[in-house]
Amino acid sequence: MSKRIGILTGGGDCPGLNGVIRAATLHARTTYGWEVVGIRNGFEGLYEEEYIDLTPSNVASLLPRGGTMLGSSNRANPFAYPVKLPDGRVEIHDVSARCLDNLHKLDLTGLIVVGGDGTMSFGQKFIERGMTRVVGVPKTIDNDLEATDYTVGFQTAVEVVVDAIERLHTTAESHERIMIIEVMGRYAGWIALTSGLAGGAHVVLIPEIEYDPERVIAAFHHRHGRGVSYSIVVVAEGARPKGGGYSVVTPGDPTKQEKLGGAGQRLAEYIEANTEYEVRSTVLGHIQRGGSPCAFDRELATRFGVKAVELIADGKFGHVAAMENGHLVGKPIDKAVKKLKLVDPKGELARTARGIGIELGG
Amino acid sequence: MSKRIGILTGGGDCPGLNGVIRAATLHARTTYGWEVVGIRNGFEGLYEEEYIDLTPSNVASLLPRGGTMLGSSNRANPFAYPVKLPDGRVEIHDVSARCLDNLHKLDLTGLIVVGGDGTMSFGQKFIERGMTRVVGVPKTIDNDLEATDYTVGFQTAVEVVVDAIERLHTTAESHERIMIIEVMGRYAGWIALTSGLAGGAHVVLIPEIEYDPERVIAAFHHRHGRGVSYSIVVVAEGARPKGGGYSVVTPGDPTKQEKLGGAGQRLAEYIEANTEYEVRSTVLGHIQRGGSPCAFDRELATRFGVKAVELIADGKFGHVAAMENGHLVGKPIDKAVKKLKLVDPKGELARTARGIGIELGG
Amino acid sequence: MSKRIGILTGGGDCPGLNGVIRAATLHARTTYGWEVVGIRNGFEGLYEEEYIDLTPSNVASLLPRGGTMLGSSNRANPFAYPVKLPDGRVEIHDVSARCLDNLHKLDLTGLIVVGGDGTMSFGQKFIERGMTRVVGVPKTIDNDLEATDYTVGFQTAVEVVVDAIERLHTTAESHERIMIIEVMGRYAGWIALTSGLAGGAHVVLIPEIEYDPERVIAAFHHRHGRGVSYSIVVVAEGARPKGGGYSVVTPGDPTKQEKLGGAGQRLAEYIEANTEYEVRSTVLGHIQRGGSPCAFDRELATRFGVKAVELIADGKFGHVAAMENGHLVGKPIDKAVKKLKLVDPKGELARTARGIGIELGG
Amino acid sequence: MSKRIGILTGGGDCPGLNGVIRAATLHARTTYGWEVVGIRNGFEGLYEEEYIDLTPSNVASLLPRGGTMLGSSNRANPFAYPVKLPDGRVEIHDVSARCLDNLHKLDLTGLIVVGGDGTMSFGQKFIERGMTRVVGVPKTIDNDLEATDYTVGFQTAVEVVVDAIERLHTTAESHERIMIIEVMGRYAGWIALTSGLAGGAHVVLIPEIEYDPERVIAAFHHRHGRGVSYSIVVVAEGARPKGGGYSVVTPGDPTKQEKLGGAGQRLAEYIEANTEYEVRSTVLGHIQRGGSPCAFDRELATRFGVKAVELIADGKFGHVAAMENGHLVGKPIDKAVKKLKLVDPKGELARTARGIGIELGG
Repeated sequence: MSKRIGILTGGGDCPGLNGVIRAATLHARTTYGWEVVGIRNGFEGLYEEEYIDLTPSNVASLLPRGGTMLGSSNRANPFAYPVKLPDGRVEIHDVSARCLDNLHKLDLTGLIVVGGDGTMSFGQKFIERGMTRVVGVPKTIDNDLEATDYTVGFQTAVEVVVDAIERLHTTAESHERIMIIEVMGRYAGWIALTSGLAGGAHVVLIPEIEYDPERVIAAFHHRHGRGVSYSIVVVAEGARPKGGGYSVVTPGDPTKQEKLGGAGQRLAEYIEANTEYEVRSTVLGHIQRGGSPCAFDRELATRFGVKAVELIADGKFGHVAAMENGHLVGKPIDKAVKKLKLVDPKGELARTARGIGIELGG
Repeated sequence: MSKRIGILTGGGDCPGLNGVIRAATLHARTTYGWEVVGIRNGFEGLYEEEYIDLTPSNVASLLPRGGTMLGSSNRANPFAYPVKLPDGRVEIHDVSARCLDNLHKLDLTGLIVVGGDGTMSFGQKFIERGMTRVVGVPKTIDNDLEATDYTVGFQTAVEVVVDAIERLHTTAESHERIMIIEVMGRYAGWIALTSGLAGGAHVVLIPEIEYDPERVIAAFHHRHGRGVSYSIVVVAEGARPKGGGYSVVTPGDPTKQEKLGGAGQRLAEYIEANTEYEVRSTVLGHIQRGGSPCAFDRELATRFGVKAVELIADGKFGHVAAMENGHLVGKPIDKAVKKLKLVDPKGELARTARGIGIELGG
Repeated sequence: MSKRIGILTGGGDCPGLNGVIRAATLHARTTYGWEVVGIRNGFEGLYEEEYIDLTPSNVASLLPRGGTMLGSSNRANPFAYPVKLPDGRVEIHDVSARCLDNLHKLDLTGLIVVGGDGTMSFGQKFIERGMTRVVGVPKTIDNDLEATDYTVGFQTAVEVVVDAIERLHTTAESHERIMIIEVMGRYAGWIALTSGLAGGAHVVLIPEIEYDPERVIAAFHHRHGRGVSYSIVVVAEGARPKGGGYSVVTPGDPTKQEKLGGAGQRLAEYIEANTEYEVRSTVLGHIQRGGSPCAFDRELATRFGVKAVELIADGKFGHVAAMENGHLVGKPIDKAVKKLKLVDPKGELARTARGIGIELGG
Repeated sequence: MSKRIGILTGGGDCPGLNGVIRAATLHARTTYGWEVVGIRNGFEGLYEEEYIDLTPSNVASLLPRGGTMLGSSNRANPFAYPVKLPDGRVEIHDVSARCLDNLHKLDLTGLIVVGGDGTMSFGQKFIERGMTRVVGVPKTIDNDLEATDYTVGFQTAVEVVVDAIERLHTTAESHERIMIIEVMGRYAGWIALTSGLAGGAHVVLIPEIEYDPERVIAAFHHRHGRGVSYSIVVVAEGARPKGGGYSVVTPGDPTKQEKLGGAGQRLAEYIEANTEYEVRSTVLGHIQRGGSPCAFDRELATRFGVKAVELIADGKFGHVAAMENGHLVGKPIDKAVKKLKLVDPKGELARTARGIGIELGG
């Protein structure tokens, strides 16, 4: 009898998820002759037993497509799941036991969990409860997982942001304005700093460096003093001015995350209140996490998908596919869960930014 | 002695302005041997006498660049100009007489005014005061000038919006959400309707059709009833629900325009308050009007730039270059000023949208 | 009983075909409640009775996709069809009678034929033989149909070519080279001239103007004399030097078309043999006709698809959807077949090119 | 007296060179207060003493621009330089002594040489002759330098190729064809293999693996046996069939390199001669190395430019900026010269390709 593996995608979607699904399916089918079961909407589909048979034919054209053909779901926490009662009320239940049962019924040789820290932590809990044949593929737009140099979707987000910054440049220059662009990054400033560097920004504000608004304004004055009459500011959504004004958020616990928002808008108001500069603020929002992946992410997704199947074939359960120092490796799943990878305010990337005159605000 | 023409760009920048400048310069220089004087920052540069000599060499690489190399200025109303007094105070003066003087000093064979309705109306007033050798190139992202089928910059805005919509599609689908995207269009829905058609939107709301929020929600229910669990909504910034809620704005008088904003956000709040759908709202903002023009606008800008010079050569002053029924023509400048071109709620474009099931809200 | 229409795509694929299929399906289903039968691989699927049921669900995500979900086929001439005999030999038969039989079996209210001049002429012949309920959507990368201002796919080809030209500019400039780019256009120079204008080319050679190679070289010398040391040349595949050297091809009869090719390469060899300039030649080939359509073509495809259904609903058989002077109209199908639309060597587009100093070679 | 550094770019241009120039200039000026001298056209400008003063102002908008503002030159070998004699003849001279003199006259604190193996080897020779204050930034589209994980320009080439492959997919599928795309890569298959992975190719042929044409054809048969009727083939220009047919080329010695070309065309002819498949072949050519860099290369170029200045500030002459295992380091210049980095036929990337069913031909 032929073997069978499963795959699910959890958490927010991002470009490259379909590439992971495609590569894992092709590799499992082509190289090992395994069946591949796609589980719909993250752990929700495991609870509801919504499956789809994955074949070379139905994954054939997935590589350039954004999103995930399996769907994802923000409700898909198997340990706190919104169960709809017959009377229409919704109660939060721990449905992990039934999920485990369903996993046993599927009789999987291995389960590939593609997701960020939340989804990974659910996978880790399943392992602890006895369903040990889990491997992972780390995924987050924010690139803030300690386990890996790059996560799938990050580079596409950077390309999208840089494209937007480039469009703002010409307007800023033609109209002598300060243009603020707010980008994703609640706890980590990777998108902001990388796209600020690549986009030719003049000020970049990230969560890792509490910024002094006066330093930001001084940077504008300094540029104007040299005869340049416009500036581009990239602000991560989690960037905070010194002394706060933003409430605390709890990393890794999505139920405790409040909507941040407004980091760019608040800075715009501060600048307009304290200077004579004309300011415009843009929030890029969800276009950063949707759409077709760039070639870098298509390649990375393919390599991660193949690696995940290799981890199963090698019996390295409890590991995630990761890029470490440029090389593809397997790393313990809890390493991907426990620690955020933050921008080092004194590291090479921050020094490079400061080296070319980018103001980091602190 | 060689002849000389002038060129200035006014109002908000948009992709293609540089293409107009380049083509007019090349044509005037190459074909007629005329000098070309670039006037900086719209009519501000005429008042301040800030000029730049335009040559084939300094316009050579302009075609792919967004913005305007001449700069633009929102203060550049020569009939209500903010003059800085020696004591630091700023007073609003009519400086048109000095502008006229400076024009006479330049001794121009013709002046090309590139701009929207505001800038065009200043050009028209100069004509009425005796500086008759003015021709125009219509320019507005919004494509809402009666004089011409297409304005420079419009198609690029549509391409940018469609690209963004495509990125939202995959997230909407993966997460079963309603995604709202607010686009430019204060009085006219050309950007919203065209990019809604080209982007595969399900609901498009435009200023020309006051929308019934209940019809919008009914469209979502209808889709969901057919098993489709996400929708894309394109909202023009000037779209209004029936019964209003938006204050009145005065077309053509930029000093009287208040910041609209919030059309998308308010609809999002309404839907979330009245349904169980998950909604996300994005405001594209200035990335619609910046950056490199698409090929269509590069071609159009080139043809308009050449046509403007032809109008001067033919002595057809007081005319603008325009595209009428697909053909390049000259039309009286006041036609470009007096009347907005609005989407006909019963015209072919709106019927096409309804024909494929797009809900227009009214 | 519900009515039923059919749709097929013939000839070379191009961006936007899927948009026509989608819009026609949505409009027929949503507005009229008609069934829609997709016929596979052009007239081949009509002979082989290969059909697919088209529904809002299976056309939902077609708009951004290149190619045609129905397939196309170069063998699909129903009047000269390669029939495979039982002994393996292939004979050319007239299978139009069987195609007509199959059409009658389908009992269609109308048949939408999407194609270029070849496919349209087949449609016209079916009409002449009694299957009168045919309407058409003109399609050709080359934009060379007299019936319509724009054909679906043309603008995307131009955007792709302009993107490529822009990439060549920087190399040409950095290395002081002459870069030649050969683009599609066997009989008509619309792609070459439009993308040459929009891409900032210095020489554009089109089939409508036999070029004098010495004029081309003189243009390089003229630029170099002014201190500019590189040039970009766009050559349509059908461009011919004066006095010929290219064999004759027969428009409209695909069986008589020989591979042209080499227009760019031959010019490169001529320049290298007669000057000291360093020359590089690139043939863009099929990337001009594949891939995702630009927003302009997505809109046009949608409008054409809706219009085709309207032509059926209005009983205007024997007509094609067309854009005439900027307006969507229906025109007799034989107008789309009989006459090529060529670039007028003295028309506005050519004059614009010459006006900014582009050498057209003749 | 303020210090001064120099910078030159040599060899073929590629996206990102301007980013290196910009970052080095900004860092040297902003952080150290050094003057920056740009040397035109590689070592040619050193011989001819063609310099340009680089300032924050004239490098401000360089980041998105392809090519190199300093120019490059294929004739710029200072050890075999084509000197034009008064009588018009051209003789090849060793002009390195005069270049060294000119370097001494410039009195540079350090010279940044941006280039590939050829340019780097000239830099190394200058060091050996006493001008020791040289540092380097490795640059090659092909990513085949042992010294560094990534070279500037490579990722942009991959993005361009993947974009082209995506356009070919839809045509191949619509017409049931085999599409061959020939890409850069004379000795190393990095562009072909990476873009084949990211572009969803079915066959990838690289210089490191002599291919068996019969295996390639067998791969087509295998796909067709499974009902898939089209295939995408990526061929590096240096790919060779088993048993040869291609003449020998000498890595690192540009004077001995013959035009390869034809790798794709020859494979196309072989397939057409030996099967019934319809085949189309495209050569991407120079569009792979021109145009605006992707965000990845803009970031990398910026980091390399800053690092090069750091190498000078730290007195680490004779080193190049390099990315090693994901970290920015300095490495001895001769490491960048002596050894090509080739694709390991049994390494992770090749195994990933084979793992998802890509035929590598051997």
